[in-house]
Amino acid sequence: MSKDPDCIFCKIIAGDIPCFRIYEDEDTLAFMDINPANEGHCLVITKEHAANLYKVSDAAISAAARSAKKVAAVVNAVVGPDGINLVQANGEGAEQSVFHFHLHVMPRRIGDELKMNWGHHPGDMERIKALGEEIAAAIGD
Amino acid sequence: MSKDPDCIFCKIIAGDIPCFRIYEDEDTLAFMDINPANEGHCLVITKEHAANLYKVSDAAISAAARSAKKVAAVVNAVVGPDGINLVQANGEGAEQSVFHFHLHVMPRRIGDELKMNWGHHPGDMERIKALGEEIAAAIGD
Repeated sequence: MSKDPDCIFCKIIAGDIPCFRIYEDEDTLAFMDINPANEGHCLVITKEHAANLYKVSDAAISAAARSAKKVAAVVNAVVGPDGINLVQANGEGAEQSVFHFHLHVMPRRIGDELKMNWGHHPGDMERIKALGEEIAAAIGD
Repeated sequence: MSKDPDCIFCKIIAGDIPCFRIYEDEDTLAFMDINPANEGHCLVITKEHAANLYKVSDAAISAAARSAKKVAAVVNAVVGPDGINLVQANGEGAEQSVFHFHLHVMPRRIGDELKMNWGHHPGDMERIKALGEEIAAAIGD
Protein backbone atom coordinates (compact mmCIF):
# COMPACT_ATOMS: atom_id res chain seq x y z
CA MET A 1 0.00 0.00 0.00
CA SER A 2 1.52 3.33 -1.04
CA LYS A 3 2.79 5.70 1.68
CA ASP A 4 4.34 9.17 1.59
CA PRO A 5 6.91 9.72 4.36
CA ASP A 6 6.23 13.48 4.37
CA CYS A 7 2.42 13.17 4.63
CA ILE A 8 0.87 14.03 8.00
CA PHE A 9 -1.94 11.48 7.53
CA CYS A 10 0.55 8.72 6.64
CA LYS A 11 2.38 9.63 9.87
CA ILE A 12 -0.88 9.36 11.83
CA ILE A 13 -1.56 5.93 10.27
CA ALA A 14 1.99 4.83 11.21
CA GLY A 15 1.44 6.05 14.79
CA ASP A 16 4.23 8.64 14.51
CA ILE A 17 1.75 11.49 15.13
CA PRO A 18 -1.07 10.99 17.65
CA CYS A 19 -4.77 11.25 16.93
CA PHE A 20 -8.06 10.76 18.75
CA ARG A 21 -8.80 7.46 17.01
CA ILE A 22 -12.43 6.38 16.74
CA TYR A 23 -12.36 3.52 14.21
CA GLU A 24 -9.90 1.48 12.23
CA ASP A 25 -10.07 -1.41 9.79
CA GLU A 26 -7.74 -2.89 7.20
CA ASP A 27 -8.19 -0.09 4.68
CA THR A 28 -9.26 3.00 6.66
CA LEU A 29 -8.71 4.98 9.85
CA ALA A 30 -11.12 7.45 11.44
CA PHE A 31 -10.28 10.07 14.04
CA MET A 32 -11.54 13.35 15.45
CA ASP A 33 -10.83 16.58 13.54
CA ILE A 34 -8.95 18.85 15.98
CA ASN A 35 -10.21 21.91 14.06
CA PRO A 36 -13.89 20.99 14.19
CA ALA A 37 -16.47 22.94 12.20
CA ASN A 38 -19.03 21.63 14.71
CA GLU A 39 -18.90 19.31 17.69
CA GLY A 40 -18.34 15.70 16.60
CA HIS A 41 -16.57 16.56 13.33
CA CYS A 42 -14.32 13.66 12.37
CA LEU A 43 -12.36 12.31 9.42
CA VAL A 44 -12.20 9.00 7.60
CA ILE A 45 -8.94 8.51 5.74
CA THR A 46 -7.68 5.78 3.44
CA LYS A 47 -4.60 3.87 4.59
CA GLU A 48 -3.47 4.02 0.98
CA HIS A 49 -1.74 7.34 0.32
CA ALA A 50 -3.48 9.12 -2.55
CA ALA A 51 -3.33 12.89 -2.95
CA ASN A 52 -6.99 13.33 -3.86
CA LEU A 53 -10.17 11.93 -5.38
CA TYR A 54 -8.56 11.53 -8.79
CA LYS A 55 -5.67 9.44 -7.46
CA VAL A 56 -7.38 7.19 -4.91
CA SER A 57 -7.98 3.57 -5.95
CA ASP A 58 -11.49 2.23 -6.44
CA ALA A 59 -10.95 -0.24 -3.60
CA ALA A 60 -9.77 2.46 -1.18
CA ILE A 61 -12.58 4.93 -1.94
CA SER A 62 -15.13 2.15 -1.57
CA ALA A 63 -13.70 1.24 1.83
CA ALA A 64 -13.68 4.91 2.89
CA ALA A 65 -17.34 5.30 1.91
CA ARG A 66 -18.34 2.22 3.95
CA SER A 67 -16.37 3.44 6.96
CA ALA A 68 -17.90 6.92 6.68
CA LYS A 69 -21.37 5.35 6.72
CA LYS A 70 -20.51 3.39 9.85
CA VAL A 71 -18.88 6.35 11.61
CA ALA A 72 -21.64 8.80 10.65
CA ALA A 73 -24.37 6.56 12.07
CA VAL A 74 -22.60 6.49 15.44
CA VAL A 75 -21.76 10.23 15.40
CA ASN A 76 -25.44 10.83 14.68
CA ALA A 77 -26.48 8.68 17.65
CA VAL A 78 -23.86 10.01 20.09
CA VAL A 79 -23.79 13.71 19.16
CA GLY A 80 -27.42 14.11 18.08
CA PRO A 81 -26.93 16.81 15.43
CA ASP A 82 -29.70 18.22 13.18
CA GLY A 83 -28.00 16.65 10.17
CA ILE A 84 -24.70 15.33 8.86
CA ASN A 85 -22.76 16.12 5.71
CA LEU A 86 -20.05 14.03 4.15
CA VAL A 87 -17.60 16.40 2.48
CA GLN A 88 -14.49 15.68 0.45
CA ALA A 89 -12.24 18.41 -0.95
CA ASN A 90 -9.92 18.60 -3.94
CA GLY A 91 -7.80 21.55 -4.99
CA GLU A 92 -7.40 25.18 -4.05
CA GLY A 93 -10.99 26.24 -4.75
CA ALA A 94 -12.15 23.66 -2.19
CA GLU A 95 -9.37 24.67 0.24
CA GLN A 96 -7.96 21.14 0.34
CA SER A 97 -5.34 21.34 3.11
CA VAL A 98 -4.01 17.77 3.44
CA PHE A 99 -3.12 16.00 0.22
CA HIS A 100 -4.16 12.53 1.34
CA PHE A 101 -7.67 11.30 0.53
CA HIS A 102 -10.13 11.91 3.39
CA LEU A 103 -13.85 12.30 4.00
CA HIS A 104 -15.18 14.75 6.56
CA VAL A 105 -18.08 13.49 8.66
CA MET A 106 -19.55 16.84 9.62
CA PRO A 107 -22.42 17.20 12.09
CA ARG A 108 -24.72 20.09 11.25
CA ARG A 109 -26.88 22.41 13.31
CA ILE A 110 -29.86 24.29 11.90
CA GLY A 111 -28.71 27.86 11.37
CA ASP A 112 -24.96 27.10 11.66
CA GLU A 113 -24.42 28.86 8.29
CA LEU A 114 -21.30 26.77 7.62
CA LYS A 115 -19.41 27.55 4.46
CA MET A 116 -18.17 24.87 2.10
CA ASN A 117 -14.70 26.18 3.01
CA TRP A 118 -15.36 26.32 6.75
CA GLY A 119 -11.91 27.45 7.91
CA HIS A 120 -9.66 25.88 10.55
CA HIS A 121 -10.32 26.92 14.15
CA PRO A 122 -8.72 24.81 16.90
CA GLY A 123 -11.25 23.08 19.16
CA ASP A 124 -11.14 22.31 22.89
CA MET A 125 -8.77 19.32 22.97
CA GLU A 126 -10.18 17.87 26.22
CA ARG A 127 -13.72 18.00 24.84
CA ILE A 128 -12.62 16.47 21.52
CA LYS A 129 -10.75 13.69 23.35
CA ALA A 130 -13.75 12.87 25.56
CA LEU A 131 -16.18 12.88 22.62
CA GLY A 132 -13.77 10.75 20.57
CA GLU A 133 -13.64 8.15 23.35
CA GLU A 134 -17.43 8.11 23.53
CA ILE A 135 -17.76 7.67 19.74
CA ALA A 136 -15.02 5.01 19.64
CA ALA A 137 -16.74 3.03 22.41
CA ALA A 138 -20.07 3.21 20.58
CA ILE A 139 -18.56 2.06 17.27
CA GLY A 140 -16.57 -0.82 18.73
CA ASP A 141 -14.40 -2.64 16.18
CA MET B 1 -33.33 -3.63 -5.70
CA SER B 2 -35.62 -1.49 -3.55
CA LYS B 3 -37.62 1.31 -5.22
CA ASP B 4 -40.02 3.94 -3.90
CA PRO B 5 -42.80 4.79 -6.39
CA ASP B 6 -43.16 8.30 -4.92
CA CYS B 7 -39.43 9.15 -5.07
CA ILE B 8 -38.34 11.61 -7.76
CA PHE B 9 -34.93 9.93 -8.16
CA CYS B 10 -36.53 6.49 -8.53
CA LYS B 11 -38.70 8.03 -11.26
CA ILE B 12 -35.61 9.42 -12.99
CA ILE B 13 -33.95 5.98 -12.83
CA ALA B 14 -37.10 4.42 -14.29
CA GLY B 15 -37.12 7.01 -17.11
CA ASP B 16 -40.47 8.44 -16.01
CA ILE B 17 -38.90 11.85 -15.35
CA PRO B 18 -36.21 13.15 -17.71
CA CYS B 19 -32.66 14.09 -16.74
CA PHE B 20 -29.48 15.25 -18.44
CA ARG B 21 -27.77 11.86 -18.06
CA ILE B 22 -23.99 11.78 -18.03
CA TYR B 23 -23.13 8.28 -16.79
CA GLU B 24 -24.84 5.03 -15.87
CA ASP B 25 -23.76 1.61 -14.70
CA GLU B 26 -25.47 -1.33 -13.03
CA ASP B 27 -25.64 0.30 -9.61
CA THR B 28 -25.55 4.08 -10.18
CA LEU B 29 -26.80 6.90 -12.40
CA ALA B 30 -25.23 10.34 -12.80
CA PHE B 31 -26.90 13.44 -14.24
CA MET B 32 -26.65 17.21 -14.21
CA ASP B 33 -28.09 19.14 -11.26
CA ILE B 34 -30.65 21.57 -12.72
CA ASN B 35 -30.16 23.88 -9.72
CA PRO B 36 -26.38 24.13 -9.99
CA ALA B 37 -24.31 25.78 -7.26
CA ASN B 38 -21.64 26.27 -9.94
CA GLU B 39 -21.29 25.32 -13.60
CA GLY B 40 -20.81 21.56 -14.01
CA HIS B 41 -22.56 20.60 -10.76
CA CYS B 42 -23.88 17.05 -11.09
CA LEU B 43 -25.25 14.20 -9.01
CA VAL B 44 -24.40 10.54 -8.60
CA ILE B 45 -27.32 8.51 -7.25
CA THR B 46 -27.65 4.89 -6.24
CA LYS B 47 -30.17 2.80 -8.20
CA GLU B 48 -31.09 1.26 -4.88
CA HIS B 49 -33.61 3.46 -3.09
CA ALA B 50 -32.26 4.41 0.33
CA ALA B 51 -33.39 7.56 2.13
CA ASN B 52 -29.95 8.59 3.33
CA LEU B 53 -26.43 7.62 4.38
CA TYR B 54 -27.69 5.52 7.29
CA LYS B 55 -29.98 3.41 5.10
CA VAL B 56 -27.87 2.86 1.97
CA SER B 57 -26.26 -0.57 1.58
CA ASP B 58 -22.50 -1.00 1.72
CA ALA B 59 -22.51 -2.24 -1.87
CA ALA B 60 -24.49 0.75 -3.14
CA ILE B 61 -22.43 3.41 -1.34
CA SER B 62 -19.24 1.77 -2.61
CA ALA B 63 -20.54 1.89 -6.16
CA ALA B 64 -21.62 5.52 -5.74
CA ALA B 65 -18.15 6.48 -4.49
CA ARG B 66 -16.47 4.82 -7.48
CA SER B 67 -18.86 6.51 -9.91
CA ALA B 68 -18.31 9.89 -8.24
CA LYS B 69 -14.55 9.46 -8.68
CA LYS B 70 -15.03 8.68 -12.38
CA VAL B 71 -17.48 11.53 -12.95
CA ALA B 72 -15.44 14.08 -10.98
CA ALA B 73 -12.29 13.39 -12.99
CA VAL B 74 -14.16 14.13 -16.23
CA VAL B 75 -15.96 17.19 -14.80
CA ASN B 76 -12.56 18.45 -13.70
CA ALA B 77 -11.14 17.97 -17.20
CA VAL B 78 -14.15 19.36 -19.10
CA VAL B 79 -15.16 22.25 -16.83
CA GLY B 80 -11.71 23.17 -15.47
CA PRO B 81 -12.77 24.41 -12.02
CA ASP B 82 -10.38 25.55 -9.25
CA GLY B 83 -11.41 22.55 -7.19
CA ILE B 84 -14.15 19.98 -6.65
CA ASN B 85 -16.08 18.95 -3.56
CA LEU B 86 -18.03 15.78 -3.07
CA VAL B 87 -20.93 16.58 -0.75
CA GLN B 88 -23.61 14.33 0.67
CA ALA B 89 -26.42 15.60 2.89
CA ASN B 90 -28.56 13.99 5.60
CA GLY B 91 -31.33 15.63 7.57
CA GLU B 92 -32.74 19.09 8.07
CA GLY B 93 -29.52 20.72 9.30
CA ALA B 94 -27.86 19.74 6.04
CA GLU B 95 -30.94 20.81 4.03
CA GLN B 96 -31.35 17.34 2.51
CA SER B 97 -34.06 17.87 -0.11
CA VAL B 98 -34.41 14.49 -1.85
CA PHE B 99 -34.61 11.44 0.38
CA HIS B 100 -32.74 9.08 -1.91
CA PHE B 101 -28.99 8.65 -1.45
CA HIS B 102 -26.94 10.94 -3.72
CA LEU B 103 -23.50 12.52 -3.94
CA HIS B 104 -23.03 16.03 -5.27
CA VAL B 105 -20.02 16.50 -7.55
CA MET B 106 -19.57 20.23 -7.07
CA PRO B 107 -17.04 22.27 -9.06
CA ARG B 108 -15.55 25.12 -7.04
CA ARG B 109 -14.21 28.53 -7.93
CA ILE B 110 -11.79 30.46 -5.76
CA GLY B 111 -13.83 33.11 -3.94
CA ASP B 112 -17.22 31.53 -4.72
CA GLU B 113 -18.05 31.64 -0.97
CA LEU B 114 -20.44 28.70 -1.31
CA LYS B 115 -22.30 27.67 1.79
CA MET B 116 -22.65 24.06 2.86
CA ASN B 117 -26.39 24.64 2.33
CA TRP B 118 -25.98 26.37 -1.01
CA GLY B 119 -29.66 26.88 -1.85
CA HIS B 120 -31.54 25.91 -5.01
CA HIS B 121 -31.41 28.38 -7.89
CA PRO B 122 -32.52 27.14 -11.31
CA GLY B 123 -29.75 27.15 -13.91
CA ASP B 124 -29.84 27.86 -17.65
CA MET B 125 -31.33 24.62 -19.01
CA GLU B 126 -29.77 24.98 -22.48
CA ARG B 127 -26.33 25.51 -20.97
CA ILE B 128 -26.78 22.59 -18.55
CA LYS B 129 -27.92 20.34 -21.42
CA ALA B 130 -24.95 21.26 -23.59
CA LEU B 131 -22.45 20.79 -20.77
CA GLY B 132 -24.07 17.48 -19.81
CA GLU B 133 -23.66 16.23 -23.37
CA GLU B 134 -20.01 17.27 -23.34
CA ILE B 135 -19.36 15.52 -20.01
CA ALA B 136 -21.27 12.40 -21.09
CA ALA B 137 -19.24 12.18 -24.29
CA ALA B 138 -15.99 12.52 -22.36
CA ILE B 139 -16.95 9.84 -19.84
CA GLY B 140 -18.18 7.33 -22.36
CA ASP B 141 -19.59 4.10 -20.85
